[in-house]
Amino acid sequence: VLVAEVVNTGTELLLGNVINTHLAFLAKELFPLGIRITRQCTVPDGIEIGNALAEAASRSPDIVFVTGGLGPTSDDLTRDELARLLGLELVCDESVLAAIHELCVRRRIAFRESMARQALVPKGARVLSNPHGTAPGLYVPASPSAGRRAPHWFLLPGPPRELQPMFFNEVLPLLRELFPDMQGFSSRTYRVTGMGETAVEEAIGARIESEGILEVGFCARPNAVDLRLIGPREALERWHPHILQALGSNIFGFDQDSLESVVVRELTKRGQTLATAESCTGGYLANLVTNVPGASAVFLEGHVTYSNESKIRTLGVSAELLEKFGAVSAETARAMAEGLLERTGATHAVTTTGIAGPGGGSPGKPVGLVFIGYARIGCSATASEHHFPVDRETFKRLASQAALDTVRRALLENSNAQA
Amino acid sequence: VLVAEVVNTGTELLLGNVINTHLAFLAKELFPLGIRITRQCTVPDGIEIGNALAEAASRSPDIVFVTGGLGPTSDDLTRDELARLLGLELVCDESVLAAIHELCVRRRIAFRESMARQALVPKGARVLSNPHGTAPGLYVPASPSAGRRAPHWFLLPGPPRELQPMFFNEVLPLLRELFPDMQGFSSRTYRVTGMGETAVEEAIGARIESEGILEVGFCARPNAVDLRLIGPREALERWHPHILQALGSNIFGFDQDSLESVVVRELTKRGQTLATAESCTGGYLANLVTNVPGASAVFLEGHVTYSNESKIRTLGVSAELLEKFGAVSAETARAMAEGLLERTGATHAVTTTGIAGPGGGSPGKPVGLVFIGYARIGCSATASEHHFPVDRETFKRLASQAALDTVRRALLENSNAQA
Repeated sequence: VLVAEVVNTGTELLLGNVINTHLAFLAKELFPLGIRITRQCTVPDGIEIGNALAEAASRSPDIVFVTGGLGPTSDDLTRDELARLLGLELVCDESVLAAIHELCVRRRIAFRESMARQALVPKGARVLSNPHGTAPGLYVPASPSAGRRAPHWFLLPGPPRELQPMFFNEVLPLLRELFPDMQGFSSRTYRVTGMGETAVEEAIGARIESEGILEVGFCARPNAVDLRLIGPREALERWHPHILQALGSNIFGFDQDSLESVVVRELTKRGQTLATAESCTGGYLANLVTNVPGASAVFLEGHVTYSNESKIRTLGVSAELLEKFGAVSAETARAMAEGLLERTGATHAVTTTGIAGPGGGSPGKPVGLVFIGYARIGCSATASEHHFPVDRETFKRLASQAALDTVRRALLENSNAQA
Repeated sequence: VLVAEVVNTGTELLLGNVINTHLAFLAKELFPLGIRITRQCTVPDGIEIGNALAEAASRSPDIVFVTGGLGPTSDDLTRDELARLLGLELVCDESVLAAIHELCVRRRIAFRESMARQALVPKGARVLSNPHGTAPGLYVPASPSAGRRAPHWFLLPGPPRELQPMFFNEVLPLLRELFPDMQGFSSRTYRVTGMGETAVEEAIGARIESEGILEVGFCARPNAVDLRLIGPREALERWHPHILQALGSNIFGFDQDSLESVVVRELTKRGQTLATAESCTGGYLANLVTNVPGASAVFLEGHVTYSNESKIRTLGVSAELLEKFGAVSAETARAMAEGLLERTGATHAVTTTGIAGPGGGSPGKPVGLVFIGYARIGCSATASEHHFPVDRETFKRLASQAALDTVRRALLENSNAQA
């Protein structure tokens, strides 16, 4: 097993201006290779970077990934601090300088003297090319001394859209070269909805744990629980049928599955289609569906019918019904689904109407209330009531997931009924 | 100035199953109070937690925030490790136990023996109530020894939807009690679009830096750059007009402004309305707009017209035009905007059509190509061409931001024209 650490640099991360997505990205890519991240830290731009690099080195991991601080501005100190730590000289790499000049021409921006700092390379390092930005990445090989294990260093750019392609194009091939024998772990994650963490542990987790062979982890997610197992493939396969039996249709997927990817996959398999009409989720539901590559084959259309007028015009909901029951009601959710089905000819129509907040709540209809409407050809429309008294963005997410789970369970029931 | 560290616990964070949003949340809330986070680290569940807590304590910050590891399962060790580090006994808190029982009743789930672990509290700690979950938070006061400064400890639950309300309801009042004299920093962030990081530094950043009074930071964001200044209010105010002049209409906002919040604010100010029709952005644009509280006052409706058929049916785009120019073309983007304007009667209509990938590209129309259409009453529709050759989700984000920036600049030009 190879062990890695991640050092993220950037004052903006510690000020909360940016969410750090590097750890999750690197971890997800490294784990299947058999590289496990055991520690991550974030330090501000400036000389604290040096301390963090020294601390990481002192724990002797196999690899250290450092992100950020490679840019042209005066607070970009990562390459200087690593060169200082390892006692390496910085030299100007002419091919990097030429690439920076070329990028400026391609993007029609003027070359600036300060950009030249990005062509400085510690002696013995290898340059990792960056077609998406001016700052290249750097690989600095391990230099063991006095019998102590020393890490390999990868310095990567801060912007995810530069780091991620560099990881695939430059870092991965280099890792395979450095560690030709690396072997991935076996692991499986069961993604569960409709049960709490404790219920999952009681239903099956504790039994697996008491056997002492598999590493068992639980993670509470919005509206879902992950049951994560790591260990020998034999044990994973042996437990698999027991877990399926214990958790049943509450398991919506495995590993990287999401509700939206499962719904798109199941629709594709059956040659069926989906349409959405959203009030309170405001496009988040359609956005989730269209995040899945290939969604265009099953997703006919979506509507964000925020106003009553657009519910009437686009979905044919009657003004009387809206007047009588209100926009946030089971009746409206159902009428939206019926109108959407008729309008689009989709196999499945799903709708949301609710109160996202922070304003707009009332004692009878509080912030967080949402109705999910669902209709399919040849069945009468249904609606379910949910309460998500959380912030506006989480509300949109939970309500969209409830809508997707409604479609998922309908697909499941239908195939059970046919079987 | 008060200094804080953050320790995030959770194997799922180091496996990449979950993106860590705690640091950004805490930092954003603490900074205006004058509390600066100088270090953050992530450790797996288990005994490494103890090492991380000890290391944080050894740097003597004023406060340490620890997230996660307070739940009912066997890998939840945070409270045990802190009690061990500080030599505190764990005792069962009867009121916490009663609250857990009560929550089970309210949620109609069975009480389980393992849940009782969550009622264990280090002696001298204060319980932070958690109405959104079974595990309470804990505040453990500083216990200085041998003249060394010791931190105050806040142990908070891992799920953001539990941590965030606990922060506002329990942690904030306690911080004001502990540090009655805390004084916020002055800072201002200029959010800039249409210029690169180096251009912003050259245009104004370097001059501010060379004065040596304000701390200057740059952060490259998707399609944007943040110029961040920290320091005396006098200097911030003195530089403000120079910065506005140097960066002009490329500044789309300040601090927590986003393109969508600026667009909703400016529309609200003018009593104008917006409608969207999305092909390639698949609802992300509408989702951004409806993330802004109060968006319902200006956002009439949105459509995700993924299929050609829905572009024809919903927006009245002609089949001939689609046939002649293709769905991804300036002509289609314009026709979508015209049809949308007519359908909805909105003041502004904005549309997207492009190729999100990974599939669907061709030599003439590669993945990443997008056209933004825009129409407003009394003007002929326009379209602009953009290239974002990035992953599918980033593409949707960049294209949606380009659409919002189109509306923002149109609003700006219009008010300049009237002035």
